Amino acid sequence: MKAAILAVGSELLGTDRLDTNSLKLTGVLERYGVELRRKGVVGDSVEEMADELRTLLSRHELVLVTGGLGPTADDVTREAVTLALGRGLTLDEEVLATIERRFREHGRVMPAVNRKQAEVVDGAVLIPNARGTAPGMRIEDQGSTLFLFPGVPFELDGMIESDLVPWLAERSAAAGNVGRETSTIKVACLPESVVEERIAPAYGEFGREWITILASPGEIRLRSTAEGPEPERRKRLDAMTARLRELAGDAVYACREEDTLESVVGELLRKAGGTLATLAVAESCTGGLLAERITRVAGSSDYFLGGAVTYTNELKTQVLGVPAEMIAEHGAVSEPVARAMAEGVRRAFHSDWGAGITGVAGPGGGSEAKPVGTVHIAIAGPGPHGRTEHHKVRFPGDRERVRAQSAQLALDLLRRMLLAS
Amino acid sequence: MKAAILAVGSELLGTDRLDTNSLKLTGVLERYGVELRRKGVVGDSVEEMADELRTLLSRHELVLVTGGLGPTADDVTREAVTLALGRGLTLDEEVLATIERRFREHGRVMPAVNRKQAEVVDGAVLIPNARGTAPGMRIEDQGSTLFLFPGVPFELDGMIESDLVPWLAERSAAAGNVGRETSTIKVACLPESVVEERIAPAYGEFGREWITILASPGEIRLRSTAEGPEPERRKRLDAMTARLRELAGDAVYACREEDTLESVVGELLRKAGGTLATLAVAESCTGGLLAERITRVAGSSDYFLGGAVTYTNELKTQVLGVPAEMIAEHGAVSEPVARAMAEGVRRAFHSDWGAGITGVAGPGGGSEAKPVGTVHIAIAGPGPHGRTEHHKVRFPGDRERVRAQSAQLALDLLRRMLLAS
Repeated sequence: MKAAILAVGSELLGTDRLDTNSLKLTGVLERYGVELRRKGVVGDSVEEMADELRTLLSRHELVLVTGGLGPTADDVTREAVTLALGRGLTLDEEVLATIERRFREHGRVMPAVNRKQAEVVDGAVLIPNARGTAPGMRIEDQGSTLFLFPGVPFELDGMIESDLVPWLAERSAAAGNVGRETSTIKVACLPESVVEERIAPAYGEFGREWITILASPGEIRLRSTAEGPEPERRKRLDAMTARLRELAGDAVYACREEDTLESVVGELLRKAGGTLATLAVAESCTGGLLAERITRVAGSSDYFLGGAVTYTNELKTQVLGVPAEMIAEHGAVSEPVARAMAEGVRRAFHSDWGAGITGVAGPGGGSEAKPVGTVHIAIAGPGPHGRTEHHKVRFPGDRERVRAQSAQLALDLLRRMLLAS
Repeated sequence: MKAAILAVGSELLGTDRLDTNSLKLTGVLERYGVELRRKGVVGDSVEEMADELRTLLSRHELVLVTGGLGPTADDVTREAVTLALGRGLTLDEEVLATIERRFREHGRVMPAVNRKQAEVVDGAVLIPNARGTAPGMRIEDQGSTLFLFPGVPFELDGMIESDLVPWLAERSAAAGNVGRETSTIKVACLPESVVEERIAPAYGEFGREWITILASPGEIRLRSTAEGPEPERRKRLDAMTARLRELAGDAVYACREEDTLESVVGELLRKAGGTLATLAVAESCTGGLLAERITRVAGSSDYFLGGAVTYTNELKTQVLGVPAEMIAEHGAVSEPVARAMAEGVRRAFHSDWGAGITGVAGPGGGSEAKPVGTVHIAIAGPGPHGRTEHHKVRFPGDRERVRAQSAQLALDLLRRMLLAS
């Protein structure tokens, strides 16, 4: 089955907003083996939309429309559909009663404009909207199926689950459940070329077109895709994920889209050495970003004690106990200072683990010996004779990227030491 | 002039990526009075793309295409255009020499696949690509103009400036420079309804359709739009901005898109009391986010000394000097503790200004007396008898939103006190 998605709304043709509803719809289509061939956006013009609808319906068996079902004058989807299909629009008393009741339940009288939302395209099957006033519609026309959904994401989500998914599932089952599914594993702090080299054998084993590398600074996601009927599809996907994990090695930190590096580190701290371990961090160039990431995780107060953002040399000495002479001799951006920060915050804050980051985030402050992007990261381990590991790196990119990659690497070093401990 | 934008690439029909190039193109079109009527995305299929191109060219005077100019088999824009327009494709020796030279300059030999990038649609005007291998093209066809641009944003940006802008400017000048321009002012920490009420008079004076309210948690952007020829357009825009600023009052913190609340606070600290003032912050529920925002600003080390993320009660006492009895009596999330944190970090870190945030970010940790979203923020001012201001709020939303709004309000309170001082 070939499908197209059309988003309606002049605001989606401006400079601020993109149609993001299509991403969710695309995921559902893929799951049930429907191929998305086109996406489009039109403004609030009846003629423009009707024209586009005619084109899309003539070329696709399934057309999903989002938006333009509201009560105001610029909500033109209903009118455009009647124009495109040459059908009428009839007020549905039952829908009207539902909308009126909805307003009453919120202690209000339905404004006259909302009457419009009870108008139904002749021959359409209504899709109830449990989360808003405008119902959706499903319309069969000359061998194609047209879905009309509201543009409000929360309302759209409800209808996807209540109506689109069952409709697709039925057709998919009739066609042997041939669908497409993806699975993601996440890799931290390796260059894309290194990851590609490591996983190359999987290309030969599973086919290059089924494995995608999505790279962003400090993180690479490896996406596997499998197609076909269940349960073979799932089995194939699991086999690909397992193989990729094996090939990519210990740089893989997560096999679920919802896991983040900070949540994985949190889980490791919870069970470090069979009991819960605590963490404190000392930051200079990252300015609080590392602490902020760690505390994004709900419940992080169980293991995270606190952090010190020591932007000045004086505070590095005062709060973390970094010797002033050490800073004078080696400079604030140096291995000894990073180590002293990690060990100092661990000692001062009485935590099991400590992290220290000091670097030149830029754009100013760089020198020939320590150019912008130079960062020293140290992780101090637990125990009275805890080992401290240190890494010196030079990150490319601007201030924001240097900071982001520094926090990412600190989390990954911590993850590796926790795994090894 | 009516325009359409078409983005080419199967990766833009997946579940991860949206076409964002169109946003920049839209801004340029608006500036020169061109109306964008449609946006579309097609995959790497010659037939599909040719079909869409024919439709778009028959209905629009200007069609901008991005993507599909690369060297690989799935880069099909050149072929699709020849199919749609019924033209040929000819290898341009000069373009080929340029591409080969480019590779040589990087110490490489041009791979054979790149020959394809030297093929030019018959009758096209070439657009040189200073930032990559594939040149763009401008093609006139039956009264419409078709631009082919690369999909790589950096390369596209270069061609927009070097070719599209001059082309549009010439046509716009011939048509009396009728364009459309926008200007934004930013308002912190006021509900949308309050802002709307305040600026209502401007709706009557300038016309409601020219003013847009863009609301996000803790921040509202008021966008003015003016249309027509220069210099009247600019004059009108300036008048609208000035009036909105007057009506919205002291909640307005910036009149330029590039200014952030943290950069404005930084500027105020630089000239506070005629000299530079320093800042330190103490955070609990925001976990480093406030420090992270402040240090996003390049050069913030001039005024920002450091921050303490004190997640535990012990660290609040140890690092900031918050009396343990005070925490025991009032709880960590309380007015006295917020005040003691702000004053404590100011004293301990020897800064002129101090900020303290303590609250319940959720999802756990709430109680009947202190439900999730309860946050106490205090700002301690300079001098031996510096005044400390305190605000108690209850933010809606999840952990991320509570944290974001808390940092935003702390910055805004600081901004207001700096302005008053």
